[in-house]
Amino acid sequence: MVRNISNSFLPRIQTVRDILLRNRVDGIIFSNMSNIRYLSGFSGSDGILIISSDSACLLVDGRYTTQAAGEASHISISQYQNKVQGIERTAKELGLKKIGFEAAFVTVEIYDDLVRRFRKKAKLVSFGKELGSLRACKERREIQAMKKAAAIASAAVAKIAHEIKPGWTEQEVALKLEVTARRSGAEQLAFETIVASGENAALPHAKPSHRKIRNGDFVVIDFGVKYQGYCSDETCTFAIGELTAVQKNAYRAVLRAHDEAIASIRAGVAAADVDALTRRVLGEEYGRYFTHGTGHGVGLDVHEAPRVAPGSQDILTAGMVVTVEPGLYFPGLWGIRIEDTVFVKKNSCEIITKMNKKLITIS
Amino acid sequence: MVRNISNSFLPRIQTVRDILLRNRVDGIIFSNMSNIRYLSGFSGSDGILIISSDSACLLVDGRYTTQAAGEASHISISQYQNKVQGIERTAKELGLKKIGFEAAFVTVEIYDDLVRRFRKKAKLVSFGKELGSLRACKERREIQAMKKAAAIASAAVAKIAHEIKPGWTEQEVALKLEVTARRSGAEQLAFETIVASGENAALPHAKPSHRKIRNGDFVVIDFGVKYQGYCSDETCTFAIGELTAVQKNAYRAVLRAHDEAIASIRAGVAAADVDALTRRVLGEEYGRYFTHGTGHGVGLDVHEAPRVAPGSQDILTAGMVVTVEPGLYFPGLWGIRIEDTVFVKKNSCEIITKMNKKLITIS
Repeated sequence: MVRNISNSFLPRIQTVRDILLRNRVDGIIFSNMSNIRYLSGFSGSDGILIISSDSACLLVDGRYTTQAAGEASHISISQYQNKVQGIERTAKELGLKKIGFEAAFVTVEIYDDLVRRFRKKAKLVSFGKELGSLRACKERREIQAMKKAAAIASAAVAKIAHEIKPGWTEQEVALKLEVTARRSGAEQLAFETIVASGENAALPHAKPSHRKIRNGDFVVIDFGVKYQGYCSDETCTFAIGELTAVQKNAYRAVLRAHDEAIASIRAGVAAADVDALTRRVLGEEYGRYFTHGTGHGVGLDVHEAPRVAPGSQDILTAGMVVTVEPGLYFPGLWGIRIEDTVFVKKNSCEIITKMNKKLITIS
Repeated sequence: MVRNISNSFLPRIQTVRDILLRNRVDGIIFSNMSNIRYLSGFSGSDGILIISSDSACLLVDGRYTTQAAGEASHISISQYQNKVQGIERTAKELGLKKIGFEAAFVTVEIYDDLVRRFRKKAKLVSFGKELGSLRACKERREIQAMKKAAAIASAAVAKIAHEIKPGWTEQEVALKLEVTARRSGAEQLAFETIVASGENAALPHAKPSHRKIRNGDFVVIDFGVKYQGYCSDETCTFAIGELTAVQKNAYRAVLRAHDEAIASIRAGVAAADVDALTRRVLGEEYGRYFTHGTGHGVGLDVHEAPRVAPGSQDILTAGMVVTVEPGLYFPGLWGIRIEDTVFVKKNSCEIITKMNKKLITIS
């Protein structure tokens, strides 16, 4: 089962082997499909990857055997009828006695079944953060894919900003955005598009509704697409017609928090400090209406390591890609969110999302 | 915390309370977002629902507080910073000592954290199938939503069948389908659209590619949308131009297996027997190219209970909605899949997907 791994995956698998050695386990079972794609190239929706010091074996069910052989051509492929049986068989074939697994992605049901099958033949070791952060620092080609995803999504938002008129429903806006992005090469959406106007903008995760956009609204558009598997994530808040002074001041406050947070980002900074700075800039007046974390890592998943939120232990490192997305939500009234995705560098960061975040007024 | 639950959710919550009593636990922690939506109306992407014999409490993070209050207005809403802390606090407030959880949806990481926090204050009890099957039998209004989703998706496929021409890429077909369905009221896709032509049709879960459709191809279109949260699921295989006799015979074999399986479905039949019948009709010649289960339940999730596959223990019951989707896959050559979604009745079943499955030839 020793096979040559193609160049692009070898350094990534080597990182796993270093973790393996450091933690004195014989192998690691991967269940997280984004980690599996990252380590093997297989992009299906279900499967298992087992990596040991000298092997890598991808386990899939019958739906994926042919696809796996094509995408992960340098890795052993094994087909299972029952996933846990497949893991048991492969662990036995590879002679693994002490096996790590991703505690954040294995369910209690699968775990209990594995323990029952392994009995005294093998021992399972829970892995947390170390495997969750495997993809946090991006390689050049990953950054390129993310920039392309961001460019496609930003262009769609820029187009809609020119077209949108009072009277359009949120759903019409969402559909136009999605069609434009798909026609420009987006593989699929990175997440469900948010178009939230008026009082709906006070819901951070609103679904596009039949509500018609009207004068005096803020319209929050949170939109992202996938390109070569990689996600983009950006939020613009547009003003429709004339706003109140209270609304304008609130927008300025969010933009200031967004700008200062981004200015603070560079390698070595604690993610929790970026979050704390955002809250400090928003101040007491606004801070209590900012009801979520400042940001999160983005990559193959739209939410991945690191966390930019209170209590995060993560330190920003060159190559990480994170969002900065302060927002204010006044239930029943209106809301604002301003979000860019940035690429962390040694002494600064680079914004990879493309829309200018100065307030755009549509009338 | 005793609150009146609105009429639509009360019988569902009562079912949970019966399970609770039968299993002698004080409460159940729900993590599966579709179960949470089913039991409370909350349609967000993250949260926890705890049901005890006299309470129901929905726990959400700050992104969802306002949405939860709107959607689950008859249930107590509690906001958490940290999910496991939130569960711990609510369990204490409700005085729960023995608490069930969904073993198929709780990760080892969350479980370990819960056990650590509960220590000797409360005991966790793993629940499997019983909670997984909660949504298997649909109510009238659920069937109505599913029929509407199916009608939207089928109409989009019917339209594309008239428009499609050799030379179109798979991605163009997928995009047209999706735009048509969205314009007809689909909320979102039920799953990633599959448009697989020629040798790509041999991949049961292919992604739409740049491959141009050409004469002699089978084109497999597996398409579903959501309406009021409910999924549709249907697969058509079209012939492009003239096929070989081998291809035509294979199509007939799959259609026969599909038809006979559907004819066998009624309340009381074992799901495994439907699967076995499908394989028996395909026979030895074709059976080994049928590499997946015959079907699965559909509802708020596109894959849910019951399983129509070898080894399934599920008995079909009136009100269940399942797919029947035999397929043949010849790696490197071509593939066929024919899928309908049916609603199980006492003495038969009703097909809710709308496309006729006789071979349609496009030229």
